[in-house]
Amino acid sequence: MHTEVITVRTGTRPVVRDITREAAAFAEDKGDGLLHVFVPHATAGVAIIETGAGSDDDLLTAIDGVLPTDDRWRHRHGSPGHGRDHVLPAFVAPYATLPVISGRIALGTWQSICLVDPNGDNATRQVRFSFLPG
Amino acid sequence: MHTEVITVRTGTRPVVRDITREAAAFAEDKGDGLLHVFVPHATAGVAIIETGAGSDDDLLTAIDGVLPTDDRWRHRHGSPGHGRDHVLPAFVAPYATLPVISGRIALGTWQSICLVDPNGDNATRQVRFSFLPG
Amino acid sequence: MHTEVITVRTGTRPVVRDITREAAAFAEDKGDGLLHVFVPHATAGVAIIETGAGSDDDLLTAIDGVLPTDDRWRHRHGSPGHGRDHVLPAFVAPYATLPVISGRIALGTWQSICLVDPNGDNATRQVRFSFLPG
Repeated sequence: MHTEVITVRTGTRPVVRDITREAAAFAEDKGDGLLHVFVPHATAGVAIIETGAGSDDDLLTAIDGVLPTDDRWRHRHGSPGHGRDHVLPAFVAPYATLPVISGRIALGTWQSICLVDPNGDNATRQVRFSFLPG
Repeated sequence: MHTEVITVRTGTRPVVRDITREAAAFAEDKGDGLLHVFVPHATAGVAIIETGAGSDDDLLTAIDGVLPTDDRWRHRHGSPGHGRDHVLPAFVAPYATLPVISGRIALGTWQSICLVDPNGDNATRQVRFSFLPG
Repeated sequence: MHTEVITVRTGTRPVVRDITREAAAFAEDKGDGLLHVFVPHATAGVAIIETGAGSDDDLLTAIDGVLPTDDRWRHRHGSPGHGRDHVLPAFVAPYATLPVISGRIALGTWQSICLVDPNGDNATRQVRFSFLPG
């Protein structure tokens, strides 16, 4: 299995970071198989959405609606409301799988691979790409 | 890797469409391995739920609750509220993975593979099945 | 493909049950590849979250917020509000995929593999582990 870890800058505010380019570069010499994208963090997820037309910010809005940053959470380490960041990966999983055909990720026209990081306490994140040959 | 794209009719209203039969037909001559189900669309997802006892409609109700079709969304192309359709795949991912044993998808008794399409603007959708031999 | 089904006791109340130890035992002699975790049930999911610091209970709270146990659901078998248990797997999928390197699941420090079972009507659940060599 080919596998590689990259470091992604996510800054100090909640962010949806498009990592399609990095994933495509990893896959491009790999033939046919399955791309696995994984974030080894307990407060981040991976989403396949459109970027650049507002949906990346919409996702952050949706997360605030579904998992408010208030004091309802038992987990109380870190910034106020941080407890909800730890629940996020149950809904936006820290992995994704995508078909690769002749080294090209078979994404639809409007799909991008995104790292979802609501947690401003970590300015960088790791992402592991793995390739399962088919 | 065996891979195949089918076209599924989803109509002009939000729908949860059971595609278990199509997936089973794809897998049946494939031996042991992993089935990957993927929709190459930015406003649809794949869910593994029970169908035929109301839960398919319940899922559409739940999506309306979690992601309302109002004017809160920045993405404003298409029908009113369509912006939420673009957030859906972050919560209901556009892929699923399932074990296949001797050509049979190892689903539980009440599980079905479903295409979730809240977007009535597209009457047909594509689904890509891929098989990773184990 | 190596595959194995274990039985997990989940009791008669909603529970987030850490199954990392069981998954690690399955993977430890398997080399490099992809671990697939699957629950063959229509009212349970798999989540990768931190356990032991409150987030497991926080997840149950979040599920009650997103999918209330009231009478809005069409699916009306089982206990009151049980209909929402059948919607859960659309949001917390019944599968997860994780990279395995030299027999070790490449989880982050704070990540655990959890069976999420909001349904108190089943005291035990099955989990299928499968390993795809890379």
